[in-house]
Amino acid sequence: MFKVKIYTIGRLKETWLQEALAEYEKRLSRQIGVEWVLAKNERELTEKIQSPWIALDVRGELVDSVALSKKLLKLFSHHGSRLNFLIGGSEGIDPLLLEKSAWRWSLSPLTFTHQMTRLILLEQLYRAIEIDSGSAYHK
Amino acid sequence: MFKVKIYTIGRLKETWLQEALAEYEKRLSRQIGVEWVLAKNERELTEKIQSPWIALDVRGELVDSVALSKKLLKLFSHHGSRLNFLIGGSEGIDPLLLEKSAWRWSLSPLTFTHQMTRLILLEQLYRAIEIDSGSAYHK
Repeated sequence: MFKVKIYTIGRLKETWLQEALAEYEKRLSRQIGVEWVLAKNERELTEKIQSPWIALDVRGELVDSVALSKKLLKLFSHHGSRLNFLIGGSEGIDPLLLEKSAWRWSLSPLTFTHQMTRLILLEQLYRAIEIDSGSAYHK
Repeated sequence: MFKVKIYTIGRLKETWLQEALAEYEKRLSRQIGVEWVLAKNERELTEKIQSPWIALDVRGELVDSVALSKKLLKLFSHHGSRLNFLIGGSEGIDPLLLEKSAWRWSLSPLTFTHQMTRLILLEQLYRAIEIDSGSAYHK
C-alpha cells in the first residue's frame, strides 16, 4: 500500500471535478491512499510541504506512461512507499520548491488548468499501478 | 466564428465528463462552434471523417500552449475557419488517417483516456482563443 499526499492551492469548486476525482480515488484505494492538502496561498504551501515531493512543472521532464510507471515505483521504493506531489498556483511553483524537489515532472508542454492537472495526476497514478501489475487498462 | 468537428469512437458515459464538456462548449460558443461526431468503431470513423483533420496522436508534435494558439489560428485561416479533430480508439489511429492528416498533434507523451483527451482538447481550444485575444486566462 502506497501513500500519496497532493499539495495544491485553492478549493475544489466544480462538481464535475469532485465526481471525477472521487471516481479515481476509489479506483486507487486498494493500492494508493490519496490525501489532499489544500493551501490558501503560495506561502502556506511552502510551510506545509513535506519531503520528498515531486513538483509538477510544465518545464520538467517529459516521460511516457510506461517510463512514468517505472519512475514512480522506484521513487516509492526509495521513500518508504510515500510520495508527495506539488501542484503550483497560477504563478507556477516557487523556484526554491522546484530546487528541493525529488523530481520535476512535466505532464505536457501545454499549460493545463490546476483542476485538470489534479485529475490527470490521479489518472496517471492509476495507470502507473495498472502498468506495473500488467493489467489490460494500459495497452 | 470558427467551426470545429471532433471525430471519436464511443459514447459519453460519465456524468462528470458530460458536465465538464458542456462547461467548455458554453465558454467556447461565442468563438468556436463545436460538433461531436461519435462513431461506433474505427471503420465508421474512417468513413465519416472529412478533410482537413488534425490527428491527436501520442507520437505527434509536442507544442506549448502559445505555439498551439498560433498553429491553430494559422490552420483555421488556411481552411476557411473550419477544422476537424480526430481522437482514435483504444488501438490508436489508423496509419492511413495519420498520413492524410493536416497535422499530427501530441497532447503529451503520456497516454490519456479518450474521455480526458476530449476534455483537454476543448480546454486547449479555449486557451488558444484566449491567448490570441490577449486575455488574462493564460498567464
